[in-house]
Formats: sequence, C-alpha cells, structure tokens
Amino acid sequence: MQSIPILKMGSFLLVSIQVDMDDRTAMSLQDDLTSAIVKHRAKGVLIDISSLDVVDSFIGRMLANTAAMARILDADTVVVGMQPSVAITLVELGLSLKGVRSALNVERGMELLQSIARQNLAEADEADAGHEK
Amino acid sequence: MQSIPILKMGSFLLVSIQVDMDDRTAMSLQDDLTSAIVKHRAKGVLIDISSLDVVDSFIGRMLANTAAMARILDADTVVVGMQPSVAITLVELGLSLKGVRSALNVERGMELLQSIARQNLAEADEADAGHEK
Repeated sequence: MQSIPILKMGSFLLVSIQVDMDDRTAMSLQDDLTSAIVKHRAKGVLIDISSLDVVDSFIGRMLANTAAMARILDADTVVVGMQPSVAITLVELGLSLKGVRSALNVERGMELLQSIARQNLAEADEADAGHEK
Repeated sequence: MQSIPILKMGSFLLVSIQVDMDDRTAMSLQDDLTSAIVKHRAKGVLIDISSLDVVDSFIGRMLANTAAMARILDADTVVVGMQPSVAITLVELGLSLKGVRSALNVERGMELLQSIARQNLAEADEADAGHEK
C-alpha cells in the first residue's frame, strides 16, 4: 500500500493524487488528512486529481466524506484539476459531490481558499462586533 | 508509463514525485518540466521527493541535470523532503547534487525560492543602475 504525501503550504494542505487509489489507500489518505488538518491547524485543503483518469463511486464518496470531515474540523476543501471524463462519470454515478468546491487548477484553487478564509474572518469579526454591543 | 503532474503555483512549479520512477518516466518528467518552465515563464521549480525511499544513480543524475537545464532557462530548482536514507545513498554513490539547492519541506522550499527571486531582482536593478551611469 502506498501512502500519499500531504504537503503543507502556509495555512493550507495540498494533496496531489497521482496513483489509481485502491480502497485501502483511499481510507488511509482520509485518516492522514484529518490528522494533518488538526496537527497543522490547516484552514483549507487542496486535492489535486488531475492525474486520475478514472474515479469510481468509492473514491467519489471518499472525496465527499473527506470534505465533510474537513468542514467539521473548520477547514474548507477544494478539488482541483478534475478531467472532463471524471466529471461525466461522477454525475452519471449519481455523485454530485455536494459540499465539495472545485477549481480549474491548483493556482485558482489556492485563490478560492484564500478568498473563503478572508470571508470567514470578516464574518467572525462582524459576529464579534455584534456580540460586544 | 505514468506521467507526473506539474502544478503551477504563482511563478513557481511544483512537482511531487510519488512513484518509484523508472528511467522512461524520469526522462519524460525532464521533458515535461523544461517545457512547463518555458510555457509558464516559471522562475523556480520545487521538486518534492518525500515519498521516495530509494533514489538510484539514474534518478540522482536526472535531478542534477534537471536543475542545470532549469538554470539555463532562468529558473532555480529546490529539492525538498529528502529522506535521510536517500541523502546517505546519494553521497555514497558519489552524487553530491551540485547546483541543486535543498530545503526541509515544501513550505521552506517556497520561501527559499522567493528569497532567491527577490535577490535576483535586486541584482538586476543594480546592474541596470550601473549601466545607466
């Protein structure tokens, strides 16, 4: 079984999936990623799947679950680099990846995460201001 | 043969090597990377080898050659995440990776590339100023 490296970039984590994952690799990635979010206090996760030609229902569900777990741990997830064929398959499988944001490439995904982080910060400030009144 | 994705992050490129590369994959990575440097006008390349347990002399030489090619194309190369055992093997093989900078992880590698870029810019400004006199 291969473990997929999780790279820390500032307050975000980057995972580049390059191998066709079997189910065990997918589960261990989920474990590693949630641990890494807590360890590094990450505010966002970028998952690059540009190398994946095939995404089956198990991997699709893993992506959705990972995003849900990250959300509870206060981190946003952006899936980047999805190939058109993968998008077609996912929708045909009935997996619309609810709650998962996507972006064209890593660069745009990073911008999206940064804008979400700024927005969250602004909302938190507003809530604080409201509380003080 | 598997192709290794090259991720663009601002003016830098990130390559995360996760598979034990055979020689053909290594050569095609070298081609893809030099093309990507030109296409994206990249100022630096980060090569993450944290997943590699073994680096043989061919891969070691490929890393050194890639750095030399990038240098000619006006981009700096930083190798990050090298495992201690890999460092030991490389030196024992007589490959000291001359001209390749290294950093502990992607985050520090990115900082190193940014500081090199700033330094190059300052030197270019100075040369311009000298020329104008």
